[in-house]
Amino acid sequence: MAETRPQPLLGEPAARVLVAGASGFTGALAAQIVWDHPRLQLVAATSRSDAGKRLDALYPRYRVPLALTELDPESVDGVDAAIVAYPHGAAAPTVAALRRQGILVVDLSADFRLREMSTYERWYGEHGAPELFGEAVYGLSELYREQLRGAKLVATPGCYPTASVLALAPLAERGLLADVVVNAMQGTSGYGRSSDDLVHFSAMTENAFPYKTEGHRHRPEIEQELAALGSPAPVVFVPHLLPLDQGELATCFATLSEPLAKEDAQALYRERYADEPFVKVLDGPPNLRAVRDTNECHVYVTVEEHGRVVAFAAIDNIWKGAASQGVQNLNLMLDLDETEGLL
Amino acid sequence: MAETRPQPLLGEPAARVLVAGASGFTGALAAQIVWDHPRLQLVAATSRSDAGKRLDALYPRYRVPLALTELDPESVDGVDAAIVAYPHGAAAPTVAALRRQGILVVDLSADFRLREMSTYERWYGEHGAPELFGEAVYGLSELYREQLRGAKLVATPGCYPTASVLALAPLAERGLLADVVVNAMQGTSGYGRSSDDLVHFSAMTENAFPYKTEGHRHRPEIEQELAALGSPAPVVFVPHLLPLDQGELATCFATLSEPLAKEDAQALYRERYADEPFVKVLDGPPNLRAVRDTNECHVYVTVEEHGRVVAFAAIDNIWKGAASQGVQNLNLMLDLDETEGLL
Amino acid sequence: MAETRPQPLLGEPAARVLVAGASGFTGALAAQIVWDHPRLQLVAATSRSDAGKRLDALYPRYRVPLALTELDPESVDGVDAAIVAYPHGAAAPTVAALRRQGILVVDLSADFRLREMSTYERWYGEHGAPELFGEAVYGLSELYREQLRGAKLVATPGCYPTASVLALAPLAERGLLADVVVNAMQGTSGYGRSSDDLVHFSAMTENAFPYKTEGHRHRPEIEQELAALGSPAPVVFVPHLLPLDQGELATCFATLSEPLAKEDAQALYRERYADEPFVKVLDGPPNLRAVRDTNECHVYVTVEEHGRVVAFAAIDNIWKGAASQGVQNLNLMLDLDETEGLL
Amino acid sequence: MAETRPQPLLGEPAARVLVAGASGFTGALAAQIVWDHPRLQLVAATSRSDAGKRLDALYPRYRVPLALTELDPESVDGVDAAIVAYPHGAAAPTVAALRRQGILVVDLSADFRLREMSTYERWYGEHGAPELFGEAVYGLSELYREQLRGAKLVATPGCYPTASVLALAPLAERGLLADVVVNAMQGTSGYGRSSDDLVHFSAMTENAFPYKTEGHRHRPEIEQELAALGSPAPVVFVPHLLPLDQGELATCFATLSEPLAKEDAQALYRERYADEPFVKVLDGPPNLRAVRDTNECHVYVTVEEHGRVVAFAAIDNIWKGAASQGVQNLNLMLDLDETEGLL
Repeated sequence: MAETRPQPLLGEPAARVLVAGASGFTGALAAQIVWDHPRLQLVAATSRSDAGKRLDALYPRYRVPLALTELDPESVDGVDAAIVAYPHGAAAPTVAALRRQGILVVDLSADFRLREMSTYERWYGEHGAPELFGEAVYGLSELYREQLRGAKLVATPGCYPTASVLALAPLAERGLLADVVVNAMQGTSGYGRSSDDLVHFSAMTENAFPYKTEGHRHRPEIEQELAALGSPAPVVFVPHLLPLDQGELATCFATLSEPLAKEDAQALYRERYADEPFVKVLDGPPNLRAVRDTNECHVYVTVEEHGRVVAFAAIDNIWKGAASQGVQNLNLMLDLDETEGLL
Repeated sequence: MAETRPQPLLGEPAARVLVAGASGFTGALAAQIVWDHPRLQLVAATSRSDAGKRLDALYPRYRVPLALTELDPESVDGVDAAIVAYPHGAAAPTVAALRRQGILVVDLSADFRLREMSTYERWYGEHGAPELFGEAVYGLSELYREQLRGAKLVATPGCYPTASVLALAPLAERGLLADVVVNAMQGTSGYGRSSDDLVHFSAMTENAFPYKTEGHRHRPEIEQELAALGSPAPVVFVPHLLPLDQGELATCFATLSEPLAKEDAQALYRERYADEPFVKVLDGPPNLRAVRDTNECHVYVTVEEHGRVVAFAAIDNIWKGAASQGVQNLNLMLDLDETEGLL
Repeated sequence: MAETRPQPLLGEPAARVLVAGASGFTGALAAQIVWDHPRLQLVAATSRSDAGKRLDALYPRYRVPLALTELDPESVDGVDAAIVAYPHGAAAPTVAALRRQGILVVDLSADFRLREMSTYERWYGEHGAPELFGEAVYGLSELYREQLRGAKLVATPGCYPTASVLALAPLAERGLLADVVVNAMQGTSGYGRSSDDLVHFSAMTENAFPYKTEGHRHRPEIEQELAALGSPAPVVFVPHLLPLDQGELATCFATLSEPLAKEDAQALYRERYADEPFVKVLDGPPNLRAVRDTNECHVYVTVEEHGRVVAFAAIDNIWKGAASQGVQNLNLMLDLDETEGLL
Repeated sequence: MAETRPQPLLGEPAARVLVAGASGFTGALAAQIVWDHPRLQLVAATSRSDAGKRLDALYPRYRVPLALTELDPESVDGVDAAIVAYPHGAAAPTVAALRRQGILVVDLSADFRLREMSTYERWYGEHGAPELFGEAVYGLSELYREQLRGAKLVATPGCYPTASVLALAPLAERGLLADVVVNAMQGTSGYGRSSDDLVHFSAMTENAFPYKTEGHRHRPEIEQELAALGSPAPVVFVPHLLPLDQGELATCFATLSEPLAKEDAQALYRERYADEPFVKVLDGPPNLRAVRDTNECHVYVTVEEHGRVVAFAAIDNIWKGAASQGVQNLNLMLDLDETEGLL
């Protein structure tokens, strides 16, 4: 069977793209999405730990017939844009080096998501490129579409903030959120490729559990974004690991500053997301299979008997929660159709 | 290989036991636990739909070499006690018939759990034995141990109320709960044996979703019990189905009427459950595998940064959430050691 | 979010296509593949049991925004080709009715796969359209590509024969097979959508078992095709059900009529499949995840120490084992590029 | 909740037992079975990598409240018997040291299973205690019960040989096996606790694959035992990894030296295993859930249409395939009831 690219490039590529950190779960997926993208050209996929191996040997199902190379971030030729899929902390210096060479950067790490340096330092430690801190646009296109067009550096949101903020944005924008509880669940791909007793199949099958119960660093990011939208509410956040690979659900319980009828809440959500290409407002609760391997976010809102709003959002944590949302951002940065390569 | 009973009866049995509805998930398990119980004798296991089949053909792993029979509830001989594992609504008339013959009854259905007839009628419809309504002891031995000793009719709690109430009881008893959110998750055994597209392996694997988002009938039961303990707080309750068989987790978020430090909350829980044979207070978040196939409830409590209490309880939904809790109740009714046959 | 078709049709469609039986697992997938196909137009998706429901309500992930309709097979307008996804036995009369109206038919059932009526009758019972028996081309394009071009009726192979025959064809064509054992495994989608205790998530998780151990009707189909290729060998066939949704593996053990070195066997396979667009000869054993949701067949052959050939083939049972192979056949019947809509 | 031992010791223990290598999957289970055993006293559980940790922190579900210690194999006091759960190669020197101190040893590794040193060296490398090679009794009590009574050193069979030999023994003993193919499948616990990309939940879920296709070291062990029984037949052996935790199935295809009718084969099996406490001959194909967490082996034999015998055996790979079989052996060595602590 010959190696084939499913869809040939449509004319000149809009950008020659590098994916840094392509041996991890989200980097490998980013490389695959760029590889299949009709307007982007994947010119390199890099990895520190797996340089020399072929990407389609590590991830056969992604079918990207490229060998992983090592990245020298100070000297990158023939690249217009980069998607950086490094761990938190490790990303910043590489991002800075790429930006110094004029390369557009979509960062998938947490290094440029927060707006307050003190918050960053509390949750992640010293920052690796403080000169760039505050320069990035927060890459949730449903909220920041205009700023993303033409941006040079984009911080793609964390997976939990993506689901949680999309679940609550219509209320947050109206300043209605008084108090928020987010109960989140995620599959084992969110744990990363690093092998560990915890994600051994024998440990996870027929299991589920909460983790980071004393504080998860996605909480301040959710609070930051809800506040930026107009609802500076305290957020209680508890994540859980589920026995599945890809998929994430945020179940959000919100006390409102003024009552809202169920019909009005549902109408508000339908209206708010009517024109969003990737947010689907459902008539009932979402499920994870329906968003698997897509850039979609499925949202449902209801008001329960005591008047509390319950809002659900389901995404694929490595797609809309990371890699495909990164490409959605890159499409906007390059002034392409936002959905290019993602439907 | 000869059919063997793992442990011989220790002397005369304390009771000859009937399990009605033994072809369903919880009834079959109840039959197995009674079968292996050193002080109980399983004299019959009945089923409407599967009469004539052997229980160990339907559930090989339970190894109960009995044929299922049909039950005539009006005429039962040689039985001292019954565990009734019928669907809600169907249980009440059978329970009443058995009680009329003087048989002790542990009911696993919802028919005798609620204290207000109007609440029962709203969530379950007309009651099948109103003369007995209010006569049952609520079968959560951690709360009602003394009433259960010598009781004639026990209503075993629902699985979600079992986990939720055990997660919150130490706070409820002190009147501290002002407001409660319960985010619950359960495996597919909670859905029952009835075949359905929804629980087809092809539908559930790599999936998870909330359900009954507009109101689940375990909510009034949780509110009833928290109020009975001293905290008549409103409860928001949302259940989810997970891709696993047995296991249930209640993640409870509580606003307290007065602040409580994390250390004080944890000390309160350790003290409250110090002598409970089946409740284990952990030093960190619980997981479902650790309680699988046991009558244990693993509890963890913490107070998050904004002062909200987060309390977790993990149980096996068909064990402590149904069948083994039923036997725990029966042990108390018969004045046996509460842990007999359950360790 | 607006309903969108991922890829617009490229010019006039090559055929207006009906999918009959679109509420089952393979029919629904066939509808989805036709819906996304750049040269085909899905004009109707029919179902007896679910007429009136929308296909994207039953299978949200397939995103086909059509309502299912009832089929009157005697009166079908505006349709050039049909994919029939009915159960064995039920398919034949509908296929015959559609053919009488000049409609090209790809049948996914077993009704037209066998060449001997007596064999059909033994395994499936009376045939529903004997006048058409023997008229169909066997739809394994890797073997019958030329006959499929321009064919009017195609019998798409069973999933197990697809994997087994592709695993053994290079040897069969040379007349080398003296004796064959096929140990096959499949996920629960192969069991079909019909709900059943057996495929309840609670029954299948952490389980696996052989089934149809006294004879499976795919065995005569495998024997027929190996004989047609030149190796009329007896085949022992045992299938197993695995705790996964989509995926099938055939592990084939063959005694040869003359010895073959491992290197020669591997060279033979590489050469035989060099130009096949969907068969990939691997350098090591295949796995199911790598072929999931694709029309690919991954093959590996080796010769073990005692001289026995062991050949493996992995497919997705509802793709290459049914629906996408049906579209591959339809592409050939319509003289389209064989890979159109399938990469 | 107080730590409790489910069943108190019945009088003086028959032996004080050490489990070496108790942090791995099989060692931890062996420690748990000894802990609960009514006639054995678990005096130490050792681990090189996890010394200092509590066993019930590593494996909460086993509920063994002991801290792991380091083993000095040259100086072991107060121990009558040891179960050694070390990797192949590492076991032999420790076994030899323990034997020099007069301690009875049940070895779970491969180091003493083979009868020919050249075969050992080919598959495992240099032997670590050649002076003991050939001294061990092969610990399959269904075949070697009398030799096991009073043995000082027992080599517990590999999991695949346990299932394969039990599946074929009734035929092998009659010298009937001319040719054998074993297609085996196993869950991820068979891969061991070592973390690895391969057994990451995200890699194994919805996956399955053959491995060691060029030769697995359990094959010579199976051939050795079939030959010892009277059938020196060549064995083709291919193992597969399945997406489940515990469970193993051997599907064996045998050509006989003389024909055998299905009824005769089934009668032969029933008769052969009539008195075996842990082998159950079924009337249909076995499944893995029915043997989970037990020392049982479920066997089914049939003869397919072409006259080939197909024999199935299902076990739990870490129970009957390792730890509980080790205790079964220890019971015999100590002249206890073979089933003690295992029902």
